[in-house]
Amino acid sequence: MKAYSLTEENIKDYDKKYNLHSWSSQGNLNPLVVTKAEGIYFWDFQGNKYFDMSSQLVNSNIGHGNKKVIEAIKQQADRLTYTAPSYAVDVRSELAKRIIELAPDNMGKVFFTLGGADANENAIKMARMYTGRQKIFSRYRSYHGSTMGAGNLTGEPRRYASEPGIPGFIKFFDPYIYRAGIEFESEEAASKFYVDKLREQVIYEGPENVAAIVMESITGSNGVIIPPKGYMKGVRAICDEFGIIMICDEVMAGFGRTGEYFAINNFGVKPDIISFAKGITCGYIPLGGVIVDKKIADYFDDKTLMCGLTYSGHPMACAAGCATLDVYEEEGLLENAKAMGKILGEELEKLKAKHPSVGDVRYIGLFSAIELVKDKETREPLVSYGKDPGKVMGTIIGLLKNKGFSTYSHENMIIVAPPLIIKEEELKEALGIMDEVLDYVDKLIA
Amino acid sequence: MKAYSLTEENIKDYDKKYNLHSWSSQGNLNPLVVTKAEGIYFWDFQGNKYFDMSSQLVNSNIGHGNKKVIEAIKQQADRLTYTAPSYAVDVRSELAKRIIELAPDNMGKVFFTLGGADANENAIKMARMYTGRQKIFSRYRSYHGSTMGAGNLTGEPRRYASEPGIPGFIKFFDPYIYRAGIEFESEEAASKFYVDKLREQVIYEGPENVAAIVMESITGSNGVIIPPKGYMKGVRAICDEFGIIMICDEVMAGFGRTGEYFAINNFGVKPDIISFAKGITCGYIPLGGVIVDKKIADYFDDKTLMCGLTYSGHPMACAAGCATLDVYEEEGLLENAKAMGKILGEELEKLKAKHPSVGDVRYIGLFSAIELVKDKETREPLVSYGKDPGKVMGTIIGLLKNKGFSTYSHENMIIVAPPLIIKEEELKEALGIMDEVLDYVDKLIA
Ligand SMILES: Cc1ncc(COP(=O)(O)O)c(C=O)c1O
Ligand SMILES: Cc1ncc(COP(=O)(O)O)c(C=O)c1O
Repeated sequence: MKAYSLTEENIKDYDKKYNLHSWSSQGNLNPLVVTKAEGIYFWDFQGNKYFDMSSQLVNSNIGHGNKKVIEAIKQQADRLTYTAPSYAVDVRSELAKRIIELAPDNMGKVFFTLGGADANENAIKMARMYTGRQKIFSRYRSYHGSTMGAGNLTGEPRRYASEPGIPGFIKFFDPYIYRAGIEFESEEAASKFYVDKLREQVIYEGPENVAAIVMESITGSNGVIIPPKGYMKGVRAICDEFGIIMICDEVMAGFGRTGEYFAINNFGVKPDIISFAKGITCGYIPLGGVIVDKKIADYFDDKTLMCGLTYSGHPMACAAGCATLDVYEEEGLLENAKAMGKILGEELEKLKAKHPSVGDVRYIGLFSAIELVKDKETREPLVSYGKDPGKVMGTIIGLLKNKGFSTYSHENMIIVAPPLIIKEEELKEALGIMDEVLDYVDKLIA
Repeated sequence: MKAYSLTEENIKDYDKKYNLHSWSSQGNLNPLVVTKAEGIYFWDFQGNKYFDMSSQLVNSNIGHGNKKVIEAIKQQADRLTYTAPSYAVDVRSELAKRIIELAPDNMGKVFFTLGGADANENAIKMARMYTGRQKIFSRYRSYHGSTMGAGNLTGEPRRYASEPGIPGFIKFFDPYIYRAGIEFESEEAASKFYVDKLREQVIYEGPENVAAIVMESITGSNGVIIPPKGYMKGVRAICDEFGIIMICDEVMAGFGRTGEYFAINNFGVKPDIISFAKGITCGYIPLGGVIVDKKIADYFDDKTLMCGLTYSGHPMACAAGCATLDVYEEEGLLENAKAMGKILGEELEKLKAKHPSVGDVRYIGLFSAIELVKDKETREPLVSYGKDPGKVMGTIIGLLKNKGFSTYSHENMIIVAPPLIIKEEELKEALGIMDEVLDYVDKLIA
């Protein structure tokens, strides 16, 4: 392989000349050349080592270089790399079965896709087919992917490129308590308010026209916004009342991130459709999909499922998926996510207490965000929505990276979501770096 | 891996219980269990061997089980399975460079996706961003994928599931000479007619509103419809006249299928954007992407490219892609596609001459279709559009399969598109099976 003998300069040069990077203007990019990744760390060409404190894009849940998954990939490469979705294959059958066994007990079947965006695309198509209705509700402050359908579900600036919007896609506001603009007496009171508002909006749109309500079980890249007590149950009740399909996007929150296989399990609610990707293979091979309730699965016994893609249920991806599920189980990663999550929460609360620049910290399992403010009292965000002309957030992320803490930010928030294999000492060491950098942010706002 | 010890019954049973198959009602499916694939053949659990005469979904161009690609996958699995799209990686840099070197010389950069649908999604997003315009032209009798944007590009029944349509997506008719309903004096005359009609439609839609014209360079799954002489040049001229982005979907026709790296090379035309997938990795690992003209690449130097996906430029896929490109080159597959394509064409003409049920045969390289009719004179299709209640086409495909010839049909057409490594004897042997089955179809219409 010629690529293996490229110099760092070659790699950078070809990248700059020939490759387009996501969500960026390309002119001033100077990407790190990544050469190796192992466990919770990765290395650049110079040999610098980084804590992967965002699990790349919150997908490397089992960490990098897991021998079991690598072995499964190699074995499958020798057995059968690909066969069309119309055939049956052992690894696809096995993975579908195991996913249904892990999913809430109302779930019947899986449709496999390649990533999160096309998982959501197929989820809304199925909801429309099943209900015969057209309108789709989704929330502001959500990210669901960047294909046209998933982009129109999305409720933040990355949506704009998929607009003018698709008719029938309707947005509502999520319960983002920290910035609700109202003081609620309790989480339950907040939930009641937001659920009532949603029900009102559904009624104004005509419930008989509404196919689905789509939500991230826990809003991920928009800042780990955790629904207050009772909220998800309230949404479930609206869906039941009006025959609306409840779709939970578990692309980021699923597969152990919160200490549960599905984040929605934290709220005692069973959706009708779950979309997933990332954690099912942790990025070793691309895979995503849609899990549907038995009644939806049965519906397609004699109705044509108008969904399809060349690489649906790709054998290499399914083999990686089976091995990844083994790893979660054998290495006790859900338990570790819970145990380390407890420590993460405690440490984040300490950072919040200490640093004037930390307005809010939100965490569940190993899924967390630090929200930076100019003023703790007024809660004024460190950068305003959609605008950061001084590249303040970029500077902060760069400082963290220079000290060996790799992650990314969204608006005024920093994501902290390490691989689920992280150990207590490692977590504390990494958060020590965060502590130092927050000192800098404190000075910035002083 | 547990899946490896499943019985055929287990595999079928789990598949039926837990897995949803593309484009089908699920109740009566009885899929073949595929266990092995090598070269131009694959095998079912019972040990039956099949000629893969559609290269699965016209993606296995280099054939199955290629040692070089398998080795590259294994090596990359040991080196680095994944890193986020924001970093630079050797295999991604290398593959981007090589694709641009193979592409028409106006091309500047590549944006990597996972498959064909999201390639087209990103192509139209880029065209809209670059032009600041909204309307997108595409053709009836096309397939571009099944996500909402790609589904709305699509001009056949698989589109219906992505409807009601997205505003600004406009359809026009392609030059399908066999069913034009007009007798043209020459290919050039047909091209002039269709190009003039397209220009008229563009003018009626307001050229200043039209971002892109999207076409398969050669219409694939809708029946290998090859543009007549001068057509593509005519479309290029319309695009030049009005500043419209010409997007060629090469997902199926690209990477050697027609004996060229890009099918559009057959017509001496340079599009502004090419979407690709399938043949870039031949399905060993999912990969797709968009190749853009230098002026579009440059545009995003200081404008944000509002495109992104978790697995853009996946290292495992890029490693497979580099090895696949080696195989095309080292094994002389484009030359073989041309040489075998000549024989395929001659044999198809013989079948047409011999069988009353064969209305038309169309072929270029190893890309071909046989169009079945009830009557050669009237050209009445064997089954009418979108309807086949007697499952006539399914029966024919089943007969072929029982005799060891695997392929698929679309409407009244049978696709013949074997891996590009096929040899003369093998091709003739397979077409002998086709000959037998066409005898049966002849009887059916007699
Ligand atoms: C919640 C959620 N849904 C969907 C997606 C889109 O997934 P992909 O990037 O694989 O298309 C993401 C990606 O970050 C996500 O976080
Ligand atoms: C011409 C063309 N474009 C796009 C697609 C969609 O590709 P995918 O199935 O990978 O989404 C296909 C699939 O057959 C195709 O033939």
